[in-house]
Amino acid sequence: MAGLRVPSVLVTGANRGIGLGLVQHFLGMPAPPQWVFAACRSPTGQRAQELQRLASKHRNVVVIPLDVTDPASIKAAAAQVGEHLGGSGLTLLINNAGMVILNALEDETLEAMTRVYTTNTIGPLLMGQAFLPLLKKAAQGSPGSAMSCSRAAIINMSSDGGSISSPAGWDLMHVPSYRCSKAALNMLTKCQSLRYKEDGVLCAALHPGWVQTDMGSSAGHTPPVTVDESVRGMLKVLSSLSEKDTGTFLDWEGKVVPC
Amino acid sequence: MAGLRVPSVLVTGANRGIGLGLVQHFLGMPAPPQWVFAACRSPTGQRAQELQRLASKHRNVVVIPLDVTDPASIKAAAAQVGEHLGGSGLTLLINNAGMVILNALEDETLEAMTRVYTTNTIGPLLMGQAFLPLLKKAAQGSPGSAMSCSRAAIINMSSDGGSISSPAGWDLMHVPSYRCSKAALNMLTKCQSLRYKEDGVLCAALHPGWVQTDMGSSAGHTPPVTVDESVRGMLKVLSSLSEKDTGTFLDWEGKVVPC
Repeated sequence: MAGLRVPSVLVTGANRGIGLGLVQHFLGMPAPPQWVFAACRSPTGQRAQELQRLASKHRNVVVIPLDVTDPASIKAAAAQVGEHLGGSGLTLLINNAGMVILNALEDETLEAMTRVYTTNTIGPLLMGQAFLPLLKKAAQGSPGSAMSCSRAAIINMSSDGGSISSPAGWDLMHVPSYRCSKAALNMLTKCQSLRYKEDGVLCAALHPGWVQTDMGSSAGHTPPVTVDESVRGMLKVLSSLSEKDTGTFLDWEGKVVPC
Repeated sequence: MAGLRVPSVLVTGANRGIGLGLVQHFLGMPAPPQWVFAACRSPTGQRAQELQRLASKHRNVVVIPLDVTDPASIKAAAAQVGEHLGGSGLTLLINNAGMVILNALEDETLEAMTRVYTTNTIGPLLMGQAFLPLLKKAAQGSPGSAMSCSRAAIINMSSDGGSISSPAGWDLMHVPSYRCSKAALNMLTKCQSLRYKEDGVLCAALHPGWVQTDMGSSAGHTPPVTVDESVRGMLKVLSSLSEKDTGTFLDWEGKVVPC
């Protein structure tokens, strides 16, 4: 992680699970970011208490209200972040917010398919659009330097459940709405990487592992990976990403996940 | 195509392009299906005149009104098809209906992303659910026989634009809404193949080639493949599919398309 120096980061879904873990780890770095924007839907809600506690202790944490399924909310968040940053750019956008609805194929509905896709796929697309000006500004702040997560990057939290060719997890979890949304997110990451390359913004998708979070445990299983292990691994992976990795899909241990 | 004997087939988006070509080719077979259900949104509209002409000449063609984004419309279509079939099952469901909105990444919207996903991905899911009882009935009609498109199958019309790992077409067409929906459709095909295997229903995704249709020409290019070549190729591919191919993604010449 020695290589990861992030002046500013925004994490969505930052009030619990992997999102909260990411905020904690960024704060614990030897050279923590100047700004940690911790976005979540209900900053004053009961499920954001731990995040609020962190924010009250760390002056570099800014809690941002954000619903990634609402373009107006995204626009407001981008304006708020831009104000805090003054003339600086945003170095790292981590699209971590996601959801699952545990429907099997036979129970899947138009509504559930739409809701999961909107949160897990369309949200990251809209976030990328809205924060691109700030990300570009960060990239322009270090002209000539190679692409990296310390310069300007979008990281999309995907899942090996979105891997079409790999059979991993089929027996555990069918949930087509989730799997389709994550396969689509991997495609979005590819599109973003090709489009934003000229702006110097690195884009990658990460599989965090099967992690001990509310979501990871939602099907009644006990996941093998702790939030701490997952986040520590992912930050190490982020520190290693360079130009050749843009558009890639890696797991928390740095292994390539097949599409 | 000698091996393809389809007692009954339903094609969505059957009024033009590849859908209409499929209907024509099924009717031209040495042993044509007993039933060709040709589904489209507006059977009495101007763009369905050629289909209506075919239906007036061929007693085995039944034009079915169907909007694949409307669960009630799908349910009504399944009931209508079931009535025509009497006690028999439906052998082959071809989810061909699809759409494209030519937005680049920077112009993509929540509405366009949702609309394209609903038509291209959720539609085939809902169609599979609604027609499963009829497909199972077809499979049960030839107990003990291996899986094939002559027994019971769902074919989803995908695109190599939905291939995440292959760079084909990136320069021609970015359109994230379309690409994400097709990547998700490939994942859906995989889910359907795993779930419906026990019912004897084969599931596969096809890339029809870049075809001279309204959609194929929509970006102002001239596609290299005619509807006739594409459909002829795909029907040959369908005739060759067996149990080992369920869940696969092939192009109109039978080549595996990478996810």
